[in-house]
Amino acid sequence: MSETKKIRAAVVGYGNIGHYAIQALEAAPDFEIAGVVRRDPSNVPYELRPYRVVASIKELEDVDVALLCTPTRLVEATAQEILALGIATVDSFDIHTMILPLREALGKTAREHGVVSVIAAGWDPGSDSVVRTLMEAIVPKGITYTNFGPGMSMGHTVAVKAIAGVHRALSMTIPTGTGIHRRMVYIELEPGYKAEEVIHAIKTDDYFAHDETHVTVVNDVDQLIDMGHGVHMTRKGVSGQTQNQLLEFNMKINNPALTAQILVSSARATRRLTPGCYTMQEIPVIDLLPGEREQWIGKLC
Amino acid sequence: MSETKKIRAAVVGYGNIGHYAIQALEAAPDFEIAGVVRRDPSNVPYELRPYRVVASIKELEDVDVALLCTPTRLVEATAQEILALGIATVDSFDIHTMILPLREALGKTAREHGVVSVIAAGWDPGSDSVVRTLMEAIVPKGITYTNFGPGMSMGHTVAVKAIAGVHRALSMTIPTGTGIHRRMVYIELEPGYKAEEVIHAIKTDDYFAHDETHVTVVNDVDQLIDMGHGVHMTRKGVSGQTQNQLLEFNMKINNPALTAQILVSSARATRRLTPGCYTMQEIPVIDLLPGEREQWIGKLC
Repeated sequence: MSETKKIRAAVVGYGNIGHYAIQALEAAPDFEIAGVVRRDPSNVPYELRPYRVVASIKELEDVDVALLCTPTRLVEATAQEILALGIATVDSFDIHTMILPLREALGKTAREHGVVSVIAAGWDPGSDSVVRTLMEAIVPKGITYTNFGPGMSMGHTVAVKAIAGVHRALSMTIPTGTGIHRRMVYIELEPGYKAEEVIHAIKTDDYFAHDETHVTVVNDVDQLIDMGHGVHMTRKGVSGQTQNQLLEFNMKINNPALTAQILVSSARATRRLTPGCYTMQEIPVIDLLPGEREQWIGKLC
Repeated sequence: MSETKKIRAAVVGYGNIGHYAIQALEAAPDFEIAGVVRRDPSNVPYELRPYRVVASIKELEDVDVALLCTPTRLVEATAQEILALGIATVDSFDIHTMILPLREALGKTAREHGVVSVIAAGWDPGSDSVVRTLMEAIVPKGITYTNFGPGMSMGHTVAVKAIAGVHRALSMTIPTGTGIHRRMVYIELEPGYKAEEVIHAIKTDDYFAHDETHVTVVNDVDQLIDMGHGVHMTRKGVSGQTQNQLLEFNMKINNPALTAQILVSSARATRRLTPGCYTMQEIPVIDLLPGEREQWIGKLC
């Protein structure tokens, strides 16, 4: 597992997560940036000037792994295309119910082309899934509650923006306890759309249909945006035949910064697994860290 | 990964952890108990009557995995002997600084005999190590503090009992913050020993030499014993280039019940890994759970 050669990573998509992915790659000791892929490669903000910005990953040289920073709904098509080039992919796909089908579809292509795809590698799904799985293993009977927020949901915000008539949007996740959440959605309307119809479209969208959702039309969404987020996970249950085992995991974090860091750490694992498609629960956590296992066992055991 | 055949487990050593290990095996859907190995096999308490109790694991049939519930200092010799029989082992070895040498020694034997050994599979080292490693991966810069207790340390209590002149003992771990702990030790003296000399031997023992340690001689240690324990882990640090990422993991648990459950869950992984010796950080967390990966990805992602 000698890693004197740096891992060459491409960032595909340059929204919030792409922005923080560049920062995380710059901070990582074992990566170098092969380039950034975006729809309009002539759009090169100041911080990307040191890097190649291209319209297709085929224009970049020797890419080991692509960090997919596209909207979730573009992940599958983008990953299929890149895996078929023999390049590993990592994504933070976040539609929980669609992870298994994605894993099957990308797994087939990954194995055919001898590469690794890590999917759903954000914080939930992602690192929270690792914690939930660990909690289930050490306290097998009981209930886990995952309480999100308060914070901006990137997936839900992108989903709102995709709805006709929405100009700008913000979806806040508010925990009401025991894993139940309220969605507070703030939108600016496109001219010519009726608020009532747009609000109905949001409330019936798959992302919102199952939660209590309130939509407010505002003049300037940007004034409301803060990318802090959090999670409060609890599990109370039984180890063996012993009751009342109490577990808890909490985070207060910058959301896209954490997601981007997890993409980068998961990209390491693509160099260490056999070809196929994996969720984070299927990856030894030690393979998310740079360098040799032994140094981390000594430090973290 | 078909698992219609149950995993046959032997419990080696029958103190606190062995007792709870039997309970955890009884509660697990995918295990059967091959028997219990103890120094005096004629000592069969009520709850062991359904099982074979023997002096050597060689007397048991078709053992897939041995759960080592011996004192930590007997783990290496016991594991070496059992691995050489082609039987997988799991232990909760808890001397943090000796984990790497143990992994190397047992790894050699495990590979020679085509079996798996999982070491340091308790809660710290063990599940806490998995959480610490995950925290390091998602927030690479910063400081993690692990605060234990208040609670009875099984490893430290066993270490005190091993000291000449100690009849019965209890070592309590008291967190004083930022990963610093006080050890509150309660002992009953053996007749003929001087308190001062025994106390000095305790305070200079490897387990206690580095912590603030107070030793009190009492008449009846048993009246003080409660096996509840806890941990409070925090990490504050940087993801990519973003500061102030706050992570926290807490548990309030029955200590030997949790340790025993982790031994049982880790025993599953011995059926799924290539021959060698592993800490829990090196095992995909999903392999700690029974059955097929897909059901858990669907449920826990």
